[in-house]
Amino acid sequence: MNRLNGKHVLIIGGLGLIGSSIARACIAQGAQVTIVDNRHPEYGANDFNMADLEGKFTLILGDVREKNFVDGIVAGQDFIFNFAAQVNHNRSIEDPIFDNQLNCIGHINVLMACRHYNPQAILAYPGSRLQYGRITTTPVTEGHPREPLSIYAIHKNTAEQYYQAFYKHYGIRSVCFRITNPYGPRSQMKHSGYSIVNWFIRQTMDHQPLTIFGDGTQLRDYIYIDDLVSGMLNATQNEHCYGKVYNLGSGQGLQFIEMARTVITAVGEGEVKLVPWPKNYDNFETGDFVSDVSALISDTDWKPHNDFAIGVAKTVDYYRKFRQHYW
Amino acid sequence: MNRLNGKHVLIIGGLGLIGSSIARACIAQGAQVTIVDNRHPEYGANDFNMADLEGKFTLILGDVREKNFVDGIVAGQDFIFNFAAQVNHNRSIEDPIFDNQLNCIGHINVLMACRHYNPQAILAYPGSRLQYGRITTTPVTEGHPREPLSIYAIHKNTAEQYYQAFYKHYGIRSVCFRITNPYGPRSQMKHSGYSIVNWFIRQTMDHQPLTIFGDGTQLRDYIYIDDLVSGMLNATQNEHCYGKVYNLGSGQGLQFIEMARTVITAVGEGEVKLVPWPKNYDNFETGDFVSDVSALISDTDWKPHNDFAIGVAKTVDYYRKFRQHYW
Repeated sequence: MNRLNGKHVLIIGGLGLIGSSIARACIAQGAQVTIVDNRHPEYGANDFNMADLEGKFTLILGDVREKNFVDGIVAGQDFIFNFAAQVNHNRSIEDPIFDNQLNCIGHINVLMACRHYNPQAILAYPGSRLQYGRITTTPVTEGHPREPLSIYAIHKNTAEQYYQAFYKHYGIRSVCFRITNPYGPRSQMKHSGYSIVNWFIRQTMDHQPLTIFGDGTQLRDYIYIDDLVSGMLNATQNEHCYGKVYNLGSGQGLQFIEMARTVITAVGEGEVKLVPWPKNYDNFETGDFVSDVSALISDTDWKPHNDFAIGVAKTVDYYRKFRQHYW
Repeated sequence: MNRLNGKHVLIIGGLGLIGSSIARACIAQGAQVTIVDNRHPEYGANDFNMADLEGKFTLILGDVREKNFVDGIVAGQDFIFNFAAQVNHNRSIEDPIFDNQLNCIGHINVLMACRHYNPQAILAYPGSRLQYGRITTTPVTEGHPREPLSIYAIHKNTAEQYYQAFYKHYGIRSVCFRITNPYGPRSQMKHSGYSIVNWFIRQTMDHQPLTIFGDGTQLRDYIYIDDLVSGMLNATQNEHCYGKVYNLGSGQGLQFIEMARTVITAVGEGEVKLVPWPKNYDNFETGDFVSDVSALISDTDWKPHNDFAIGVAKTVDYYRKFRQHYW
């Protein structure tokens, strides 16, 4: 599939897990890729994610919160992905303004820049399963009520609505995704604030026990990065998807404790430690979550291919090889 | 009812329609009222709204967007109302960042200030019926889906969720209201961006025809300012209401054209001009809206008292007397 041959793709936050994986897939399809990143030390950027492709893409250092900067980078781009984000639940409630600046204003900057300087661009918005809040029926369809529990989740919802409004009011084409727990090679491994699967892989490789709240029977839906990338690229190149919102997950429910056991199997050692739920867990815990991805499957030729055990094995292999660049 | 005797009440945006009306009711009940306003020339502030009560309240000039300023004004307040807002639909989509600063960051500043300097305060959040977006079932209950159509409505929803999150995470008590079209004395009369009823009153008093899109049969729910004030004061003094969201309207549906005719009757002259809907009206028009206010009625001893014709007559009387301060 070389549908992106010669296309210009701008990826903001392009040195992180999802951004760099999208960038690599676009380069492989012959696209002219520009990566923008601010290399914020606490977030997901890692130059090593793109190091082997040096010379095959353009890197611009800059911050999506700066309107004038964003105004200057959108012209001529066919596709624009903005992955620059504040991702930490707890930080969002400690510092809602910082979260607003990245997770709201950053997206306004991209949308306004496109409105004024590139109304033909096609945009992708990476939302989150957390937009749904407490789950009342599973598998979760896009019509499930959204009652977000944290400031992070509130803002993820807000920015999704910006994309919808700019589509309606100005015809700016976009596809919005509500992404379930992603994992895979290239995620940062320095702290637990990103992918829980990746964090469990690191802990197991470091000979630390995996702490699980409660009995670990809550269901989660983990999507391997390659399936996430193919879902986003499929939908953004499909005009039937413009202006719409799609769940993006594996569509498979897995008990949390089974996820941990799969990690332990892939690493070849490790142990699980069950502890009681913390006192305030109810403020964050969503209950069982399994994504209904039938809408995306029916509107595109995408489907998820990676079995969880295989995805985890590939991820463990990657970090065994390149551990020194992530630890 | 002197339940507010000796209580300290802070009203941000307190020189506008709702703010000044709340302030006047609180002063009448014996409260120590502090009004904060930035007197933004395009918005609702009017010194005349409080001129007859000079000396009976404290006025502080300042802007809710400035964190350090807000941090300095919340201590010692029993009740805090933040009416400082960007209210213009079109401006919100032309300048979403300005809307975000007032309608999101302003509320974050109040909530964070309370968290750090006055966690005992009771807060009120003035949301909007526009949070619901296109109406699918009427009368509209609080459980109706919320699919806001403009950036203004998106942010009204976002800020409501901030209050809910701060209640859950930090125990900051608040009551959120989704207010339908308010009208009455003390609304600004300089442009059409605020109350449509007030604007029609001005146009009729100025011998201008009232322009109505379509056939004017769409239902709206208009709440007289005194009923709005009593609803907010009742709920904020009722602990059963904390952490909850209530519709705040008259609960009565009135055809748009009947509203116009009632204005004409009250003024004693005037005419209606029917014109086709503008091309993009579908991006803003919500369809029939009637508020279901049974939740607020059942949780408090409030109910709306003012018949629409009586409310309009009182409003016309007010502007006949004080026209020079508002035109």
